[in-house]
Formats: sequence, structure tokens, C-alpha cells
Amino acid sequence: MDKIAPKVTEILKEMLLVSDSFIPLHIPEFDDKEQQFVNECIRSNFVSSVGSFVDRFEEMLQTFTGAKRCVLCVNGTSALHLALHSAGIGFEDEVLIPSFTFIATANAVSYCGASPHFIDIEEKHLGVDPTKLSEYLEKEFTFDGVQLYNPKTKRKVKALVPMHTFGHPCKMSELLKIANSYNLLVIEDAAESLGSYYKDKHTGNAGLCGVLSFNGNKIITSGGGGAILSNDIDFADKLKHLSTTAKEPHKWEIKHDNIGYNYRMPAINAALGCAQMEKLANFISHKRKVAEMYFNALKNVDGLRFVSEREDSKSNYWLNTIILDDASGYSLGELLKRTNDIGIMTRPAWTPLHLLPIYSNCPKMDLEITENMFRRVINIPSSAKLGF
Amino acid sequence: MDKIAPKVTEILKEMLLVSDSFIPLHIPEFDDKEQQFVNECIRSNFVSSVGSFVDRFEEMLQTFTGAKRCVLCVNGTSALHLALHSAGIGFEDEVLIPSFTFIATANAVSYCGASPHFIDIEEKHLGVDPTKLSEYLEKEFTFDGVQLYNPKTKRKVKALVPMHTFGHPCKMSELLKIANSYNLLVIEDAAESLGSYYKDKHTGNAGLCGVLSFNGNKIITSGGGGAILSNDIDFADKLKHLSTTAKEPHKWEIKHDNIGYNYRMPAINAALGCAQMEKLANFISHKRKVAEMYFNALKNVDGLRFVSEREDSKSNYWLNTIILDDASGYSLGELLKRTNDIGIMTRPAWTPLHLLPIYSNCPKMDLEITENMFRRVINIPSSAKLGF
Repeated sequence: MDKIAPKVTEILKEMLLVSDSFIPLHIPEFDDKEQQFVNECIRSNFVSSVGSFVDRFEEMLQTFTGAKRCVLCVNGTSALHLALHSAGIGFEDEVLIPSFTFIATANAVSYCGASPHFIDIEEKHLGVDPTKLSEYLEKEFTFDGVQLYNPKTKRKVKALVPMHTFGHPCKMSELLKIANSYNLLVIEDAAESLGSYYKDKHTGNAGLCGVLSFNGNKIITSGGGGAILSNDIDFADKLKHLSTTAKEPHKWEIKHDNIGYNYRMPAINAALGCAQMEKLANFISHKRKVAEMYFNALKNVDGLRFVSEREDSKSNYWLNTIILDDASGYSLGELLKRTNDIGIMTRPAWTPLHLLPIYSNCPKMDLEITENMFRRVINIPSSAKLGF
Repeated sequence: MDKIAPKVTEILKEMLLVSDSFIPLHIPEFDDKEQQFVNECIRSNFVSSVGSFVDRFEEMLQTFTGAKRCVLCVNGTSALHLALHSAGIGFEDEVLIPSFTFIATANAVSYCGASPHFIDIEEKHLGVDPTKLSEYLEKEFTFDGVQLYNPKTKRKVKALVPMHTFGHPCKMSELLKIANSYNLLVIEDAAESLGSYYKDKHTGNAGLCGVLSFNGNKIITSGGGGAILSNDIDFADKLKHLSTTAKEPHKWEIKHDNIGYNYRMPAINAALGCAQMEKLANFISHKRKVAEMYFNALKNVDGLRFVSEREDSKSNYWLNTIILDDASGYSLGELLKRTNDIGIMTRPAWTPLHLLPIYSNCPKMDLEITENMFRRVINIPSSAKLGF
């Protein structure tokens, strides 16, 4: 019989079920500011693809992350797609991505006509494992000094997309070194890590570009929304042009010089985002308090580990994570059932993408840790308000 | 010397420049209702992909258009893409679309890996010409009783996308007859025609599905937004599933059974859309007054024609349109310059898509009328508020 599930359920119940009868996994926090900004946007009449709130949200994100440029998109998925497409990922290319990620990472690769090539993660912080990746590339791939190839599929391997799982930054120094030695573009999937820093550098700033998400379950929300951070001005100009139907500037002629996208964030969503940005530092501080609270409550419990940030990085603790010792998946199933039954919303990790029939035929390395973690990882309620 | 441009400029100036110093082509009209609904949405905390306003906006559109189902999307482009993709348009297929349309129609076909095949329009209401299409298909294509082929490219021709230009419905009876006889799917691009009826039937309701847009320049706006109307319940279910990352329903497992999209409209945009829907009938009535005003002011002017609705249909008069007699493009250039110079915003039609380098190699029929209209068509200010 499982002992860990009842115990953790009791701890969470005591901590969380003080007044509310349902504790969601992650909900946004609004006050009058959001209504004020959105009302201002409506009164300005500019609610769509043009509007001062779009520029303002971009500038706020640049200031916050230190990126030279920011390009807002309708959501994180569109931002990932646009980033990959603009980076030159095309038909029959391969892109190295973790299998342990939300499906959007893989879908964005597919939209380009390319194939994901799944790589494994580290047990400690659930990000791409640099050591395992390095050995794999050394052993199984060919590199002609310019281009990396997968000899089995005869395809070009063009980019690496590290994803900062649940807010914990990947080991970017090591990953960048590997990427540089094989001429791989680095596009960070920072959808979950706004407010997370790797060695004092905000996530999304290390490679060609990084992608953020402002979906309703993220640390801040614009309803729907995403963004691409880049320190390459020309690349950012290209992103913006392609996100706005590749329309050529002209007083009245309607001409387009490329097959572009309608990916620009509407101003009404940006207005919501601007209001949220004003509170982001506060949210992070509260979310870090929630993490500390969990850490203290769980530190003496046998049979599990709470995921704390690494010494060299700072996490936004987007979703707080427990890793159970039991690798059979039994404890996980029990804990999911018990907590959700009493209104404490918990979730397992995503089904690893290589286990989904639609992605099961994609090239992949051994994914032992990914599969193991899938049977051990559980996310627990993490809204900033829990730290107030 | 051109006589028509100064004359029309004078007429527009007298009609429009009463108090304002700048008359835009088309702007949205908001009052307290929009702020009220959006604030209610923010207070509910459901601003993202889940939220009652999304269902409510869909229901309002179903009731208004008579379509059995409506699936909201982030914008009209995503709606077109999703409709084509879900209808089975894929790699190396061809889709019959007008060259005289906004580039999104062609881009959506390209996103599927398919190619647009450009067809010509009628001079009278600027929609796809059924007679010319019928003759073209008869002469230049092969049909094996099941599938239409383009013998020149050896590709399958799978669908026809009529676009209801500036709000004027195409001749759908004739087009449907042609489509049926060649087994072509009909996907209406009704992005400009919410509130327009062909023989008492709302546009977008004739074929497999129809696509609406709620961009900031449309008759109603949700900031950004689009929708797919369909009377095929199974197809609509598929659209909704694919628009929400193809996630399988489960209490907590995160699994996806297809390469889906993140195309669902956020609730905050739907809230804006709901408020606009309450005024749509009013907007249409005011826009029809604007059209009548233009018709009367221009009816005795030689050298041009104001585009009025056909007897068998009702137009929302999204953008009011003048067609100049001068086919050289000279009068058009003069009129664009004169009006825009004094703050009356006017616009030519889109550069025909087959004339853009990116689409110049696509298959096409003779496009004489399209090219002719491009040198003669001008859109004049059309906001609903001009009729108040």
C-alpha cells in the first residue's frame, strides 16, 4: 500500500484548504489596474493590431528581460513557430527538442515541415541534459564543419530548443557550448520562465532568440499572448515583418513581399499584459514564498523531493513540483486521485511527446529519464496569491 | 487632365469633412457596453482559452448567421487555415481562390503546403465569376468523376474559396453548382461579409464552412479574432478539437491525438465581441445609410460607378466602393492622392496576388478583370458612425 500519497495529501490540505474549497493549479491575479488599462485601450479605439499598448508591452518586456528587442505574438505557439520559421527551419530539417515539454514545442517544429528529434532531460531540474546530448551528438551524428547531419534520416539538424521546465533554467552555458561546436541555432522555449534567470541573465536571452507565453495559466497573462525576445536587431525586424503579414510600408498600396503570418498581438491583449507587467516583480516574490512554504512543509517527508532552484540560477517557480521516489507510477496515480478528489488541483507532467502516437516515429535518443520522470513528477497549486 | 478626381474629392469633402479633420477608412464604434463586458470578463478571472464569453460569442454568431455551429479563432487567417487544413487540403493540392483578395486567403492555402490557383472576378460586384470559372474548368482541367485535376501541374484541385468582396455576396448558387459537379469543397471567405445575405441566407453558410474576421477594421471587432461557421456538426467538432491543441479530454492526463493548433480565441477578446454583437444590427443599418448617402451623391457623376448590392442579395456595405471608368489607373492615382492629402482616407484594392512576386508562379486563369479592377477600384470611408 502507498504511504506517500495520503501523507502529501494531508500536508497540502493543511496548507491550502484554509478558506477556499477549490485550489486551482495556477490562476491569474487581477485588480483595478487591468480594467483601467483595458478600458483606456477601448476608449482609444485602437484595440487591434495597431495601438500604443503593443509598443508599451514590448518595451516593458525589453526592460524587464534585458533583451534588445521583443516582438509580441498572439500566443506562445505562434511565437515559437515564427521564431523557428524565421531562423530558417524548413522542410525535412530536424530540430533537437526535449520530449518532456508541452506539445507546442513539437508542433511549432512540425508547422515548419521539419521533424522534432527528441532528447532527454536531467533528473534534477528537468531541463535538457547537456552531458547526454553531447555524447549523443558525438556518437550518432556527422558534422562537416558547417552542418550537423543525422546519418540515419539523412536530414540536417539545424537547431536546439531548450525548454526551461516549470520555470527552472536549463544549463545554458553547457548547452550553448554544444550548440556552438555544431553550428546549431539556439531558440529557447522560455514559455514558462518569465522572471527566471540563469547566472544573472534572464532566460530567453542566450541564443538567437527566446519565446515567452502569456497564456492564462502563466506567471502573467494577456488572455492569449506570446513574445519573442532577441538581441539580434535584424532578426527581430524580420520577425516583426513576418508577424504582420509581410506588408510593405506604403501610404496606400497594399503589397506583401513574403508569405507572412497574422501573428501580431492585438492591443487589447497588450493592455492586459501591461497591467500585469507592473505586478510581475511582486508575483515572483510571492511565488518564491509559496515555493519556500512547500519546501519547508515537505523537506522532512521521505519518498519525495521538492524541486528547488539551482545555486547558479533563480527560478520564477512557475509551477511547484514534487518528484516522487516511486518510479512505478503508482504513488503518482494515488496522489493525483486523492488531491483532485478533495479539490486540490494537481497535475502530472505532459505525456512525453515520443509516447504520443503522432510523434512516436520521430527520431530520438534514449529517453530513460524522461519516461522515469513522467511516472514521478507532480505539479501542485502555485498561484502567486497563495503567497500573499 | 483628369477631371474625375477633383470632382469626387469635392463631393467627399463636402459630405465628410464636417467637423473632423481626418476621416479614417473604417474604425470600430464602442460605448460603455464593451468596457462593461471586458471588465466582467477580467473580474471572472477567466480571460484566456476557457471562459463563458467564448461560448456566448459563438452562440450569438450562430443565432445571427443561422449556422448550426461556430468555432472562434484568434483571427480570420487562423480560421481560414484551420478550415482548409481540417477539410483535408494538404501538400501539393491546389485551391481555387480569387487573385482579387486580401493575401490571407492565399497564405492560408500556402500554410497547408498547397498552392493557390487564381481565378478571375466579375466586374459588377467583384466576386468570383461563375461563368468564366465554369468554362475554364471545362476546358483546362480533367475530372475522373471523383477528383478534379490540373493536367499542367498534375495536382489535385480540391476546393473553391469564394470571397465576398467588400461585403457583397458572390453568386453562390452558380458557384455551388460548379463545385458540386467537380466534387470541390466550398469554403467561403466571409471575412468581410458578416451581416451580408445571399438570397436570404447569411454568407458563410452555403458550403462546408465559412470564415469570418473580427479584425479592428471589420464591421465588428474583438481586437483580433475570427470564426468558422459550419452546418456540419462533425466537421465543427473537428475544428474545435484541432483549434485547442487536439488535447484529449481527461481529468488530469495531458495527451494529444493530433498535431493541433493554438487557435482558440481568448475570452477577453470574446467579451469585446459579445458587446459588439449587441450592436451589429444597428451597425448594418447605419452602414446601409452611409451607402445610400454615397449612392445619391455620386449617381449623377460621369466617369464612375458606385457599387450597389445586387437585387438577390443584401450587403453589409463593409467598405463602400467606387469603380472609375478610367482603366489606365491615372484617375485612381489622382483620387487617392487628393483624398488622402486632405485627410479623407481612401484605399485602392489589394495588389492582385498573382502580381506579387511571391505568388507570381502559381497557376492561374486569364485575370483580365482582376487587373482591370485593380486600376479602377477605390474604397472610401465607411465607418458605421458616418451614418449616425
